[in-house]
Amino acid sequence: MPAKYVYFFGGGSAEGDGTQKDLLGGKGAGLAEMSRLGIPVPPGFTLTTEVCGYYQDHQGGYPDGLEAQVEEHLRRMEEQLGRRFGDPANPLLVSVRSGAPRSMPGMMDTILNLGLTDAIVPAWIAAGADARFVYDAYRRLLTMYGDVVLDVPHSEFEKILTATRREQGAATDADLSAAALQGLLPQYLKLIEERGKRPFPQDPRGQLWGAIAAVFESWNNPRARDYRRLEHIPDTPGTGVNVQAMVYGNRGVDCATGVAFTRNPATGERRFFGEYLINAQGEDVVAGIRTPRPVDGVNGEGGLAKEFPQAWEGLQKVSATLEGHFKDMQDIEFTIEHGVLFMLQTRTGKRTGPAAIRVAAEMVEEGLIDRRTALRRVEPQHLVQMLAPEFDLEEKKKVAVLAHGLPAGPGAASGAIAFTAERAATMAAAGPVLLVRAETSPEDIVGMHASVGILTSRGGMTSHAAVVARGLGKPCIVGAGELDVDEEEGVVRVAGQAFREGDFLSIDGTTGEVLAGSLVTRPSEVLRALLGGAERAGLSPRAKAFVEILEWADGERRLKVRANADTPHDAEVARALGAQGIGLCRTEHMFFDEARIPVVRRMILAHDAAERAQPLAELMPMQQKDFEGIFAALSGLPITVRLLDPPLHEFLPHGEKALQQLAEQMGVDPHTVQARAEALAEANPMLGLRGCRLGITAPDIYEMQVEAIVRAACVRKRAGDDVRPEIMVPLVGTQTEMIRLRERTAAVRDRVLAAEGMQIEILIGTMIEIPRAALVAGSIAAYADFFSFGTNDLTQMTFGYSRDDAGRFLPEYVETKVLPCDPFQSLDTEGVGQLVRLACELGRKARPDLHLGVCGEHGGDPDSIRFFNQVGLDYVSCSPYRVPIARLAAARASLEGVG
Amino acid sequence: MPAKYVYFFGGGSAEGDGTQKDLLGGKGAGLAEMSRLGIPVPPGFTLTTEVCGYYQDHQGGYPDGLEAQVEEHLRRMEEQLGRRFGDPANPLLVSVRSGAPRSMPGMMDTILNLGLTDAIVPAWIAAGADARFVYDAYRRLLTMYGDVVLDVPHSEFEKILTATRREQGAATDADLSAAALQGLLPQYLKLIEERGKRPFPQDPRGQLWGAIAAVFESWNNPRARDYRRLEHIPDTPGTGVNVQAMVYGNRGVDCATGVAFTRNPATGERRFFGEYLINAQGEDVVAGIRTPRPVDGVNGEGGLAKEFPQAWEGLQKVSATLEGHFKDMQDIEFTIEHGVLFMLQTRTGKRTGPAAIRVAAEMVEEGLIDRRTALRRVEPQHLVQMLAPEFDLEEKKKVAVLAHGLPAGPGAASGAIAFTAERAATMAAAGPVLLVRAETSPEDIVGMHASVGILTSRGGMTSHAAVVARGLGKPCIVGAGELDVDEEEGVVRVAGQAFREGDFLSIDGTTGEVLAGSLVTRPSEVLRALLGGAERAGLSPRAKAFVEILEWADGERRLKVRANADTPHDAEVARALGAQGIGLCRTEHMFFDEARIPVVRRMILAHDAAERAQPLAELMPMQQKDFEGIFAALSGLPITVRLLDPPLHEFLPHGEKALQQLAEQMGVDPHTVQARAEALAEANPMLGLRGCRLGITAPDIYEMQVEAIVRAACVRKRAGDDVRPEIMVPLVGTQTEMIRLRERTAAVRDRVLAAEGMQIEILIGTMIEIPRAALVAGSIAAYADFFSFGTNDLTQMTFGYSRDDAGRFLPEYVETKVLPCDPFQSLDTEGVGQLVRLACELGRKARPDLHLGVCGEHGGDPDSIRFFNQVGLDYVSCSPYRVPIARLAAARASLEGVG
Repeated sequence: MPAKYVYFFGGGSAEGDGTQKDLLGGKGAGLAEMSRLGIPVPPGFTLTTEVCGYYQDHQGGYPDGLEAQVEEHLRRMEEQLGRRFGDPANPLLVSVRSGAPRSMPGMMDTILNLGLTDAIVPAWIAAGADARFVYDAYRRLLTMYGDVVLDVPHSEFEKILTATRREQGAATDADLSAAALQGLLPQYLKLIEERGKRPFPQDPRGQLWGAIAAVFESWNNPRARDYRRLEHIPDTPGTGVNVQAMVYGNRGVDCATGVAFTRNPATGERRFFGEYLINAQGEDVVAGIRTPRPVDGVNGEGGLAKEFPQAWEGLQKVSATLEGHFKDMQDIEFTIEHGVLFMLQTRTGKRTGPAAIRVAAEMVEEGLIDRRTALRRVEPQHLVQMLAPEFDLEEKKKVAVLAHGLPAGPGAASGAIAFTAERAATMAAAGPVLLVRAETSPEDIVGMHASVGILTSRGGMTSHAAVVARGLGKPCIVGAGELDVDEEEGVVRVAGQAFREGDFLSIDGTTGEVLAGSLVTRPSEVLRALLGGAERAGLSPRAKAFVEILEWADGERRLKVRANADTPHDAEVARALGAQGIGLCRTEHMFFDEARIPVVRRMILAHDAAERAQPLAELMPMQQKDFEGIFAALSGLPITVRLLDPPLHEFLPHGEKALQQLAEQMGVDPHTVQARAEALAEANPMLGLRGCRLGITAPDIYEMQVEAIVRAACVRKRAGDDVRPEIMVPLVGTQTEMIRLRERTAAVRDRVLAAEGMQIEILIGTMIEIPRAALVAGSIAAYADFFSFGTNDLTQMTFGYSRDDAGRFLPEYVETKVLPCDPFQSLDTEGVGQLVRLACELGRKARPDLHLGVCGEHGGDPDSIRFFNQVGLDYVSCSPYRVPIARLAAARASLEGVG
Repeated sequence: MPAKYVYFFGGGSAEGDGTQKDLLGGKGAGLAEMSRLGIPVPPGFTLTTEVCGYYQDHQGGYPDGLEAQVEEHLRRMEEQLGRRFGDPANPLLVSVRSGAPRSMPGMMDTILNLGLTDAIVPAWIAAGADARFVYDAYRRLLTMYGDVVLDVPHSEFEKILTATRREQGAATDADLSAAALQGLLPQYLKLIEERGKRPFPQDPRGQLWGAIAAVFESWNNPRARDYRRLEHIPDTPGTGVNVQAMVYGNRGVDCATGVAFTRNPATGERRFFGEYLINAQGEDVVAGIRTPRPVDGVNGEGGLAKEFPQAWEGLQKVSATLEGHFKDMQDIEFTIEHGVLFMLQTRTGKRTGPAAIRVAAEMVEEGLIDRRTALRRVEPQHLVQMLAPEFDLEEKKKVAVLAHGLPAGPGAASGAIAFTAERAATMAAAGPVLLVRAETSPEDIVGMHASVGILTSRGGMTSHAAVVARGLGKPCIVGAGELDVDEEEGVVRVAGQAFREGDFLSIDGTTGEVLAGSLVTRPSEVLRALLGGAERAGLSPRAKAFVEILEWADGERRLKVRANADTPHDAEVARALGAQGIGLCRTEHMFFDEARIPVVRRMILAHDAAERAQPLAELMPMQQKDFEGIFAALSGLPITVRLLDPPLHEFLPHGEKALQQLAEQMGVDPHTVQARAEALAEANPMLGLRGCRLGITAPDIYEMQVEAIVRAACVRKRAGDDVRPEIMVPLVGTQTEMIRLRERTAAVRDRVLAAEGMQIEILIGTMIEIPRAALVAGSIAAYADFFSFGTNDLTQMTFGYSRDDAGRFLPEYVETKVLPCDPFQSLDTEGVGQLVRLACELGRKARPDLHLGVCGEHGGDPDSIRFFNQVGLDYVSCSPYRVPIARLAAARASLEGVG
């Protein structure tokens, strides 16, 4: 007996079911499952993905027995419906649709109305079918079949149609008469004859097999192949093919077609949501020629409940059945033929971030799903837009919306307009700047950095501006085509107004709105709730859902989440957002403080330790105060303080003039300052005298810092805090560096503790951020209480990319797929990750109790967090506002492979 | 029966032998072996290294039975000599010496005359011994024992001695009367009483055990421990202790003591070479109070043969016996007592490079050793000084030698004096500069780079100047104390003359001579011979030996040796020195050519490929000519051409002024030039837009280069050459980069070959110089015909050290042993080597025929070559002048583990 290649569905049962996505494709499995659930589905059958595989392996051949199985299933459809495929008087028409296990653009989609021929059209009309309907159906078939099977450009059909409309004085296709439609047919057939790779088949079975082959062919077209490669979708199994009896939403005013969601996909509200068109076929909704109506009606007018009460009731039942069955929000297609409801598709509905969160949380409350399922449904990215700053809605209402663009980077921003990156960088010193350009290019990176937001008139969601802005976490709108940006003249014209450099504009990167003037931004509702410790009861449903999801996440995750924070304020924000400590407290940011930088500079301009002694003595109490503040803010939680990392010349001003000023301020000979600055200058500061190299060659600086940390810990402990400082040595690359610095650090720590008469556990560890450190991690671990992976520098050095310079090629690398993504955003698990994994293994082998974390920006990236969970880190540390994202990502990572 | 801890030697036999270095130490094994060979050795015994181990493990305790064994062996000595240890009338005196398996500074060395006490001294004199001799012997014993066993500073004894000399009006110790010496004794004993950790033991056995314990203690003193750590000498086995009967070279004018070599250790000439002192004890030779005489005499006067004919004859026999036995040049110590010869030590003689080469080669001719043994004896470093440039000897005779310093970097250099690194860098544009400073520091690195040689008045062989100069391969003299360098005033005073900035000085870094004026340097004799293809017969013995050793090396090595060469001249030098191809032909050096740089700059200032087309078209024939020249020079050998590597801004002049000039020259708006230069500037150019990143983002540049390579190959093949070009893509870090560039390169290659109608095999491979490339080498190998490890960049990125900046901490790191050596000189096998090994394994696994080489500067470093041989590279490539060194190093690597 030959294998089974064809699966029937329809009439309340099906040979397949919803679990067989691999065999039947997503669409086929959905149709089968709906049939089994007793949902009204026009009957049909699915050719399995195995047939596709066979087809590919046999250069377009089909397995033995397939044709017989198709014929058998066609007969079954005919019997169920009482119509015959190819019957001139009462023809069964079918649709042919592809359906792969995973939704995949680039493949052939749909051909409707298969089964009509030159002979059947008049016969069917003669048998009583509405002529206009039949001509229209045939016209649609010729267009779709000609386009996707016979390679005639769609635009050629459009040209003829447009000409006919013009001749007839018809505004839309719906205004064309039956005669006019009839007149199109010979023109279409001639077009296919001339331009098509074959003539249009005048037998229904020929049409069917042609369409099936076209689906299988499209599996291997370049766009589909590219998509699979990029999305890591395997080439097998292939796609299924669904052949289904046509039902018609375009057979009169008691017919309609629509798309809907079982809940609101924008807000997540539990309320049936969708649109429909009366007397229309599915493709009309997509084509956008007529505006569909909301299922709820408009201002109390219309609406499905009123216009199709029976179908409406059916839809409500179907909706409940589907959600109850699939346990998720469904995206459905339906057709109402003469008042009777038919379902054509169901699939999991795409949703916005807030909707995803709310749907997941509410379905838990409804008992539909459990918490783990909810956590699996909410992507960390979904949280992002709820955390981005927003405009006050009341304020926003007062200003004009000038234009709309693509919401490329969520969040709200107001700033003075700059038209070039250079001006943006300059103007940023004076206040917030909004970079406005036709489009951005790699040269603009510095200006983008300096701006609070980016607005372009051209480009799509993957344009340079969009990609970079998301990378930088900046609000961004691209492709706002209503804007006329004249960079030469320095003006942007929109909505009859002209804005020049320095004028204020605002953008809402969450909605894509461009607004006039400057608006105050505020933390998002969720953020306000988290930071303010608001009562749960007072929260909006979506904010409540957000908080719940995070709480559930905390119950599942193994990875702890810390934050990178350098000030008491940041530390407090981090704690409010759920951080379980500080993974990176940078001491150099404190150095840049206005009150301190003169002292820091005196320290730098000193020639030796003797001259450095005085400025270091002045800096010590300042640093101590900083640490006291941070320790107080996070009593009970660990705080990892990194000793000075950047090269000293970073603290000097740049340019001759600035150095001269500095000399005057300090009362020093300008030549001395200049000479020292020159002596400190480096060709590649990233790879120069910094981090522990500084700590080894100028030990007094680290000693001052360690003393400040330990003194601060003593002060706060005496004040009643539970202080848990950890001292982190940056940039270690060799065991000897670690040994020397551990010895010195421990000596200062023990001396100060003894002098203060205190006992505080203060760990000493290191960053692993030099490739060599990862390679020899075993030997370093013997002298380190903890490792914290500095994946920013580790990525820089493993790839040999300077973050400051890679903007000149990295966007092109990502765009042209030399790299799958920006390795500074998402950890390169293949290369850099190999080093992380190795260092974890070697470190833990040498010291089983070694504490492992990461404090690079990857600590807030969900894909990277997944990897960090796999390799067994103890915690990730990220910027405070990424903490909620990391909490969720860590939970999802824990759930991988868990039932 | 207790284990055997003590081994006897003397009287023509021994319990141990020369193979037992681990058990008896080097000295003990040598004494045992000499005894067995019938060489006259004063009898004695060796405490084994096992005793040392026991002593360390048991806090100074000795194993059971040791004391009895020592007593037994003492008795045997006494019987053989007819004297008794502690006998007042005819005392046996002994020496105690340490002797570890490997020679090791920092440990206790020698105590002579043990066995004398306050009681024995007068008794012995009463029994007829010469009073002055006995007092002198006791004085020496008190000094040595007080110093090394009882911790009384040596200088305290010297103070007393000096005072006595002054009182007595004695010029030297030898002028002190017996009474004066006798007068010293109570003072010495009092000094020990007051300052020593114990009083001087007045029983001979107490002295002996005190001395033995002092030797064992010294095994673990800090200097010895440091030395072992640095030289990777294990802590076990420890040292042996040799107790030997004293013989006296200071008992009259028929006595003498001396040190000698069986051949000349400076030249390698086969001629007994050494010095002796009449009526002296061993330490007098070392102390340098009296000038020893050459064994050959001076101007026909004196000499051992005349003064001690019988001992001389004995020494000749001993010399022949030892060389015949040990198959190597020996360094011996001897004493003649009343005309009778005694041998006190034999060990392998240290020698200069030329001597090592000549001795090894001539011993092969003499049939003493085989070629492999000769190769094992010659260190690659030995070749270096024979390859360094030298002054013409005739010319050199004409100028005055102003001073002598330590020969820290071999080779000869003449240059205009600069007193600061900054001036050196500036002046270097005008001609050769000699950097003259009191000492150098890390800030001077740029100036050292710019200079042809370095001369300092202070510092030793491991000072900053010495270490860096050797690293840079620059001639260097340090510690030339006769120079008075006044950097402030800008003058160096020496030998009554003053030299100021711009005046010429010359240094011979091989000899340490500082010379006035400028001297022409010339290639060394060996280099002239190799380059000139001189007849073997006309060569000096040492040059002949050099050539032979290299030929033998070629017969043994598995690794091929290529050279890094960018010009036809360099290629010819490389071939003459034995290079088997070019491993790295950099195309950017060609770009800097004066005739081309304007075209290159026009290419750089172009905004896009369209504007670049014209300058690229102009560059193409120029590059083609270059390649034709190199291909012609190395017909029959592979030549790896690397596509453009550095960032484009390297080809632009620096500074506003220079850019303005450029704009004028090019007839371009200065702002345009400035803007382009700014746009190209990078924060960390090492990690920026260079190498294949340039090749991917500006593909036309590589395409031009590939076309030039292939065209040149066609031209030369038509001219009859056997051309074997290999095209190398730099800086690859991902598989996709390799795929894209391989495709493009192959396309151009195939197109040009087709157009020319030629068939030439042209491989396409890549450098592995990015850590990530090593980590994913398997995936890259699938698209590369070869890997060439760029260990310079790989070291930079694996360590995170910029070579341009590391001068600010690397010398200190090496000096303070944070790093065992400069990782840019000798490959860091632990870290960087791990990546090299991994890449080899992954690459070969993916592609078993993958060709592997290295073209970083480590390719010429012997230790690195040893590693490269281990990991299975096919070749190393180094600078042409290092090729002979690499050939030898490769042979020695092949011989490891081979019988």
